Amino acid sequence: MTESVYKIIELVGSSPVSWEEATQNAVKSAGMSLRDLRIAEVVTLDMKMENDRPAVFRSRVKLSFKVLAE
Amino acid sequence: MTESVYKIIELVGSSPVSWEEATQNAVKSAGMSLRDLRIAEVVTLDMKMENDRPAVFRSRVKLSFKVLAE
Amino acid sequence: MTESVYKIIELVGSSPVSWEEATQNAVKSAGMSLRDLRIAEVVTLDMKMENDRPAVFRSRVKLSFKVLAE
Amino acid sequence: MTESVYKIIELVGSSPVSWEEATQNAVKSAGMSLRDLRIAEVVTLDMKMENDRPAVFRSRVKLSFKVLAE
Amino acid sequence: MTESVYKIIELVGSSPVSWEEATQNAVKSAGMSLRDLRIAEVVTLDMKMENDRPAVFRSRVKLSFKVLAE
Amino acid sequence: MTESVYKIIELVGSSPVSWEEATQNAVKSAGMSLRDLRIAEVVTLDMKMENDRPAVFRSRVKLSFKVLAE
Amino acid sequence: MTESVYKIIELVGSSPVSWEEATQNAVKSAGMSLRDLRIAEVVTLDMKMENDRPAVFRSRVKLSFKVLAE
Amino acid sequence: MTESVYKIIELVGSSPVSWEEATQNAVKSAGMSLRDLRIAEVVTLDMKMENDRPAVFRSRVKLSFKVLAE
Amino acid sequence: MTESVYKIIELVGSSPVSWEEATQNAVKSAGMSLRDLRIAEVVTLDMKMENDRPAVFRSRVKLSFKVLAE
Amino acid sequence: MTESVYKIIELVGSSPVSWEEATQNAVKSAGMSLRDLRIAEVVTLDMKMENDRPAVFRSRVKLSFKVLAE
Amino acid sequence: MTESVYKIIELVGSSPVSWEEATQNAVKSAGMSLRDLRIAEVVTLDMKMENDRPAVFRSRVKLSFKVLAE
Amino acid sequence: MTESVYKIIELVGSSPVSWEEATQNAVKSAGMSLRDLRIAEVVTLDMKMENDRPAVFRSRVKLSFKVLAE
Repeated sequence: MTESVYKIIELVGSSPVSWEEATQNAVKSAGMSLRDLRIAEVVTLDMKMENDRPAVFRSRVKLSFKVLAE
Repeated sequence: MTESVYKIIELVGSSPVSWEEATQNAVKSAGMSLRDLRIAEVVTLDMKMENDRPAVFRSRVKLSFKVLAE
Repeated sequence: MTESVYKIIELVGSSPVSWEEATQNAVKSAGMSLRDLRIAEVVTLDMKMENDRPAVFRSRVKLSFKVLAE
Repeated sequence: MTESVYKIIELVGSSPVSWEEATQNAVKSAGMSLRDLRIAEVVTLDMKMENDRPAVFRSRVKLSFKVLAE
Repeated sequence: MTESVYKIIELVGSSPVSWEEATQNAVKSAGMSLRDLRIAEVVTLDMKMENDRPAVFRSRVKLSFKVLAE
Repeated sequence: MTESVYKIIELVGSSPVSWEEATQNAVKSAGMSLRDLRIAEVVTLDMKMENDRPAVFRSRVKLSFKVLAE
Repeated sequence: MTESVYKIIELVGSSPVSWEEATQNAVKSAGMSLRDLRIAEVVTLDMKMENDRPAVFRSRVKLSFKVLAE
Repeated sequence: MTESVYKIIELVGSSPVSWEEATQNAVKSAGMSLRDLRIAEVVTLDMKMENDRPAVFRSRVKLSFKVLAE
Repeated sequence: MTESVYKIIELVGSSPVSWEEATQNAVKSAGMSLRDLRIAEVVTLDMKMENDRPAVFRSRVKLSFKVLAE
Repeated sequence: MTESVYKIIELVGSSPVSWEEATQNAVKSAGMSLRDLRIAEVVTLDMKMENDRPAVFRSRVKLSFKVLAE
Repeated sequence: MTESVYKIIELVGSSPVSWEEATQNAVKSAGMSLRDLRIAEVVTLDMKMENDRPAVFRSRVKLSFKVLAE
Repeated sequence: MTESVYKIIELVGSSPVSWEEATQNAVKSAGMSLRDLRIAEVVTLDMKMENDRPAVFRSRVKLSFKVLAE
């Protein structure tokens, strides 16, 4: 079997700045070498507010990466 | 009954800069004290164009806030 | 903050005649001046039947109106 | 205009016991007379866990009630 | 990077008694310390019937837990 | 053709007690022998309120059962 | 068991005039006494065009009716 | 290759009268011979209100037409 | 009333070979004359694995057929 | 602006043999050079039956292709 | 026929900076005069990673523009 | 706790031949003993085209397997 197979995991990243940075933080946390990563699809975006701290932007993403080389 | 209850309202905010700022503008307009707010979930994002002005980013959000203290 | 903000409320209107009239009845009941209203998006349509009266057409709509002037 | 109009609001109720009780708590919090209420439709269910207290069942519902008599 | 990251896994729990217990069984099986768990969101509910045993309630949930401390 | 075929029907059951019992009531009403039934998938849950009687929990389910033996 | 149970069937009705009439035609074809019918929920609407005849409006509905008296 | 292929385009039509007429206006604007058209599927319906003119009914449709003869 | 009405039923067919064959098996089991059938729309596809037999492809379809002649 | 832009069109292809061939027929009909094409995403699958001819498998796809070189 | 008709096309834009810029790049590529454009609705957002270049933010949008003057 | 618990993972398999084979390749890559596997539910299907190689069929599936014996 020589075809590629990808695995998909779901993560929530956060950032005080933007949803783009929240998405990048989620990807960094996955701790994988960059060569295996492919696409982080946005599932949902939200903004969390708590009274004693600034709002936080959160991005829930599905992250796909190769598990079998072609 | 001592359990928390949250109410959810739906708002559309806008900004010439970003969807993050549009979301924050929607929340500000709700005119509630920050201690009651919890989460602004993004429902849809769009960008409105009109020929005599710059494009506007709009964010439709569901905003939840506590209506009964725990 | 000079950007527009819209609020969205959800209503169910009904009419013995058509879903167009059911939608207009929902909007009228909102009791707002017409200058603030913008769009009534149809969420669901149905027809209710009861044995002792004619069928009723119902329209569930999301009604948006301006809460902050531009 | 003699047709009924319903308004729909969205609430999140919670209970340490069951999603049925969480739904009833959401309805009670709406503070309306029972004669106006009609249906609480479940939008989502979840269970919240925090390390220093028992799990809580939460029910997000859309609650409809009559705003114009027939 | 000091922001929280959550991972989300999908599980199906079952119980002869209720969907609440099915959800708790799914969470228990995840074998994680309770301090890391956050929310079990219900994806689908069903009831399985087989002719030689009582019906079983099943709950498919998305379970989120912290993977990076704040 | 020796493969199984299942038919799926949609029912709404109700109960004053719980959505689990409402689901079982829907299944009982289908009047089929238990050996043919397989799974009752929840489509929607709601709670109906009327002013002169207690709230009723309702479960809309898709019920599958074998129509061709393997 | 004294609770009501409803069955739901899916039909497509058509009319050269309107989606309201298409929905009513679908209901009539179900051939049931009017006392058992309850609600026809619209699933999809379309308009079919064929070159040698006028366009036809079609309404796909889910029709619910009582199968067990309360 | 002798099989039919259809192309699908998305249009928004409008009418002061009804969603049926709005759908027909969208189809007319496509400027195609009637023999190639097949089905206009409704995607969304709404009603637009502006303070200095009557409400307008709008229908967003997916219009399919043959691009390869059978 | 001279317009066509279609009924829609939901079936699950299976095949060891392909989802196309699974769909055809579902249609055959419906036991209707071919002149009444119209379209089998795929709702979901899956592949069932059991340790003592080959994998089975399953297709859940909505099957429409004419109930009133034009 | 050096970033890629893709356009997405929606097509329905058909084949008496399989949904894979139906998808390839839809792509061929688009009449574009193969270097611009990227992905054909399946939107819906169905099987059409007519009494005087064999069943036809149809695949509705969204076809993306590059409109601006990187 | 004096009512407006809009056409909707689907595009994917990309940017190394943000989803807002990706959306604007998609709109620019459509090559239309700004007076015809109306709204770019976000369908999906993702972030593409390749090992030898920085991540790219991509925005899939539905772009509506007037095809018939009012 | 004697009830079964299933875990669900999401994979993308590919094949130059068919979506059935793509699904089987995804399952094989999961590297689990066949006795634990249960069902591979199709989430999305697509066909990838690149100018210097034949089209590839891809299947994104949710694969469930037992994590606790009954």
